[in-house]
Amino acid sequence: MTQMDFDLSNGIAVLERTPATLRAMLFDLPSKWIDATEGPDTWSPYDIIGHLIHGERTDWIPRARIILAQGSERRFTPFNRVAMFEQSKGKSLGDLLDEFQELRTENLRILNEWEIKDEQLGLEGEHPELGTVTLRQLLATWVGHDLGHIAQTARVMAKQYREAVGPWRAYLPVMDRG
Amino acid sequence: MTQMDFDLSNGIAVLERTPATLRAMLFDLPSKWIDATEGPDTWSPYDIIGHLIHGERTDWIPRARIILAQGSERRFTPFNRVAMFEQSKGKSLGDLLDEFQELRTENLRILNEWEIKDEQLGLEGEHPELGTVTLRQLLATWVGHDLGHIAQTARVMAKQYREAVGPWRAYLPVMDRG
Repeated sequence: MTQMDFDLSNGIAVLERTPATLRAMLFDLPSKWIDATEGPDTWSPYDIIGHLIHGERTDWIPRARIILAQGSERRFTPFNRVAMFEQSKGKSLGDLLDEFQELRTENLRILNEWEIKDEQLGLEGEHPELGTVTLRQLLATWVGHDLGHIAQTARVMAKQYREAVGPWRAYLPVMDRG
Repeated sequence: MTQMDFDLSNGIAVLERTPATLRAMLFDLPSKWIDATEGPDTWSPYDIIGHLIHGERTDWIPRARIILAQGSERRFTPFNRVAMFEQSKGKSLGDLLDEFQELRTENLRILNEWEIKDEQLGLEGEHPELGTVTLRQLLATWVGHDLGHIAQTARVMAKQYREAVGPWRAYLPVMDRG
């Protein structure tokens, strides 16, 4: 398959669409869909939005800032993948969708303001588990992470009808995907 | 995992959101994303919208009509999964998104107009390959098919950055999913 090089404007084109995509998919849906999971220790659409919010607060832009600063400490703070189980408490899905949209808009404003040059994309930081990574890889991962969670959201919902579709299950690989 | 029984209003809640979801994800994106695939003989986001359009025209509502009529011939016409390679020719992605939205709106209008009763959901038709299927299974499949293609669209796009994300690939299962 063809592979795309990371390109700031192409990457941003995806990042800026994610909040509206998830809003179109989820807002005002019956709670059966919003709270559905793939089984124990898996995430619902509601959990996923909370996880994306935590990423906006603590992952992408803070790590990009560390890389761009090129200070003596370039090691990222570990990202808490499950912080949303505490932080989403008491919030409606609508609240979370609003919060995600606001944070994303603000983060893309910061990203644009930095006017990152092509050579800066090669600057490095230190991931606590993965080791040396570049700003280019970090930003590409932000995009891929969004898309992965959009796919996950649709998959979690689809699987609720795994039995209901009867023999059509054989034609719907999404029903049995891990 | 919990399984949801098919329920007409819950199913329609998803079906009515799909055109706006795909529009939010894809409209006006750079063509690199729209035309990206997972390799030879796989579909791009552009192809997927064309495939969904063909389903609106020839699959879901026509088959539901056959089942509801309970005539002597209850066998469905085979669905052409790849008709879009001809039928989308010359159309922009924006054209396709509009067409999908219009067809879906009209099909849901028809579905609502039928005022399907719970006992009718058990009526049967004959799938050319799968054999006996019920109206309930057909309508649940319509929903699952939408969600499967939303997941596929996000996955196809994500995979374009499989190399660009560098070592983060290990954390992004979407990059290597079949």
